Amino acid sequence: MRITANRKAHFNAAHRLYRKDWTDQKNTEIFGKCSNPHFHGHNYDLIVGVTGEIDEETGYLIDLKILKDIIKIEVEDYLDHKNLNLEVEEFKAINPTVENIAVVIYDRIRRVLNTRFDLTITLYETPRNYVIYKGE
Amino acid sequence: MRITANRKAHFNAAHRLYRKDWTDQKNTEIFGKCSNPHFHGHNYDLIVGVTGEIDEETGYLIDLKILKDIIKIEVEDYLDHKNLNLEVEEFKAINPTVENIAVVIYDRIRRVLNTRFDLTITLYETPRNYVIYKGE
Amino acid sequence: MRITANRKAHFNAAHRLYRKDWTDQKNTEIFGKCSNPHFHGHNYDLIVGVTGEIDEETGYLIDLKILKDIIKIEVEDYLDHKNLNLEVEEFKAINPTVENIAVVIYDRIRRVLNTRFDLTITLYETPRNYVIYKGE
Amino acid sequence: MRITANRKAHFNAAHRLYRKDWTDQKNTEIFGKCSNPHFHGHNYDLIVGVTGEIDEETGYLIDLKILKDIIKIEVEDYLDHKNLNLEVEEFKAINPTVENIAVVIYDRIRRVLNTRFDLTITLYETPRNYVIYKGE
Amino acid sequence: MRITANRKAHFNAAHRLYRKDWTDQKNTEIFGKCSNPHFHGHNYDLIVGVTGEIDEETGYLIDLKILKDIIKIEVEDYLDHKNLNLEVEEFKAINPTVENIAVVIYDRIRRVLNTRFDLTITLYETPRNYVIYKGE
Amino acid sequence: MRITANRKAHFNAAHRLYRKDWTDQKNTEIFGKCSNPHFHGHNYDLIVGVTGEIDEETGYLIDLKILKDIIKIEVEDYLDHKNLNLEVEEFKAINPTVENIAVVIYDRIRRVLNTRFDLTITLYETPRNYVIYKGE
Repeated sequence: MRITANRKAHFNAAHRLYRKDWTDQKNTEIFGKCSNPHFHGHNYDLIVGVTGEIDEETGYLIDLKILKDIIKIEVEDYLDHKNLNLEVEEFKAINPTVENIAVVIYDRIRRVLNTRFDLTITLYETPRNYVIYKGE
Repeated sequence: MRITANRKAHFNAAHRLYRKDWTDQKNTEIFGKCSNPHFHGHNYDLIVGVTGEIDEETGYLIDLKILKDIIKIEVEDYLDHKNLNLEVEEFKAINPTVENIAVVIYDRIRRVLNTRFDLTITLYETPRNYVIYKGE
Repeated sequence: MRITANRKAHFNAAHRLYRKDWTDQKNTEIFGKCSNPHFHGHNYDLIVGVTGEIDEETGYLIDLKILKDIIKIEVEDYLDHKNLNLEVEEFKAINPTVENIAVVIYDRIRRVLNTRFDLTITLYETPRNYVIYKGE
Repeated sequence: MRITANRKAHFNAAHRLYRKDWTDQKNTEIFGKCSNPHFHGHNYDLIVGVTGEIDEETGYLIDLKILKDIIKIEVEDYLDHKNLNLEVEEFKAINPTVENIAVVIYDRIRRVLNTRFDLTITLYETPRNYVIYKGE
Repeated sequence: MRITANRKAHFNAAHRLYRKDWTDQKNTEIFGKCSNPHFHGHNYDLIVGVTGEIDEETGYLIDLKILKDIIKIEVEDYLDHKNLNLEVEEFKAINPTVENIAVVIYDRIRRVLNTRFDLTITLYETPRNYVIYKGE
Repeated sequence: MRITANRKAHFNAAHRLYRKDWTDQKNTEIFGKCSNPHFHGHNYDLIVGVTGEIDEETGYLIDLKILKDIIKIEVEDYLDHKNLNLEVEEFKAINPTVENIAVVIYDRIRRVLNTRFDLTITLYETPRNYVIYKGE
């Protein structure tokens, strides 16, 4: 019996959309006010979905305490109340769009999550814009 | 890296469920109070999901300004504050159920959306009833 | 011990903003697309708040089954799936703005609610616009 | 045209996570405070998703009144205001984790739902934890 | 400058509505299925509102870490995953209706909150039913 | 007939909690990670409540288009996608706590809102923390 268990979490961060190899003018042209050099920020809402077989003994897919700890270490401690561009290693090379942040979160959780599970990351940048990434 | 970006929107409209080729009695029998000849209405909440490859240069799947404009022209300007039965071309021939409204929205956005993207329409008629249509 | 107990409900209806004693042009000028002669509609979300003393014997402010029945008879049966302008007595004389609908709901519930309770009506016309009326 | 129609419902219930064939100590070790012998409880929010072809005649996937009645009989009447461990047949043998409750709901609805429809059960145990089960 | 700062929290608990000095029949007659002797349960959502003057030095009304700790000790540790009737001192004498639970929470927080603040408790028993208590 | 009409809006911004006249150590001691010198950010959700008499002619308290325009000019254009500490005049002198941001928004709207209306500002810094300010 294959099921998906989902756990919600959130973090707050500052960022700007910006490519170092582009002129300021091009950054503004492409990214608009999201490229403000003084940064802006968001409350990111995250849903981590884990898919696999229900453990017949416990009736759990995964002990949610384990998943909660993974999310705390890999996402909340790492990203909460941070400036993504200045303080987070991955975004020194890549632009912190919501798409790329979802990929970074996926990769960090994937590395430590048991390989018998599939993983889906849903990330809200605002209540009206969100992305879904499954590592495909 | 394949991702889905979602954008929420909404519109308000009046409608009634009704087939011209049925008697009033049959319409009431099948559609109940949803067939009220004086119309009733809803706040429709829409989620437009676009799936494709992340653009490596910008870190975007799609510039949300473009998607926002498409939704404005194809859905909001076309359906908001309208009587679906009397004022919207597509519903002169078909019944404006939430299923059919989702199909009409899909078709209108599909026509103008770049073919490299897949499209998913999620449409809430009320907070408790909603449909998901992927053009399949 | 004075407490407020709140119960949520909802109904769907069609309406248009319109004064019979104004020209069509003036109606459009003041009410914009809300005055569309073919009507539009909303999912109205309602919160009925009742304030009074906790009954020491039951620990209830009011038996919510009683409040639920009042809301069903006075609001849901009366307004749900209706055209407010054409089918609801009160709106033959007054314009069905969200303000006036809240007043009508207040008056209908006030008439049948025990006088030992105060009453507050919160009415959402859309998730972003709502009014609060206390009969003052 | 293949579409998914979703209907939300909810029920409240008491439960504890517990295996009769384990010692109390082991139950507490694995399930923590969720194994409290005096029980605790939840407001379960349920989304029943039904997938199939739109009926060309009515424009419905399924008459939602039929789906509403199925949910009322198979889920609400059966589980609402119940103690899952003591009063619900299926949980005499299996542990009432949110995963197993979703499977039980799926099986009960699947038995009575027309076989031309696929079925998806989404069950929230809390606003932050939920599972999705498709009978696979 | 007088302001209200609000903090949301939640807890899950089992309960039944029941008066020991009434017969089982009378309990069922008055409280219906809420009096089920095997208990049922809820996810209680709590909003703690604190009102007072903004501290000019910090710009805070109250350090939310302090409020969070008070809520953790007085509400979450005390009520979460508990059977209110069997395990919580206050409900040995009084019936655990949502009204009375709000009063108990108010009294517990009031005892430890600085007297320069006013206090408002908003408690949701389900997403559709909630109470507001201000200690008046 | 006195009523309150509410309009929701939102904006995203970066900020840090910080007093220039305190040492960095004291800022960190009092404001914790909210004082991160590289900034963090939030999606601020705003509810503007306007209270007064219903206009008998239109049935409106206030034309919501007017209120929407005031919110756009005084709040969204002024604060959205900004760094509050570096780019917003008012926060050069005062600390951008959610309490102080609510006061600034109140003062800006109060200046341009017709004096026959009372004003209430509700500002969410996160979905779990929010303040209410009425200019008292």
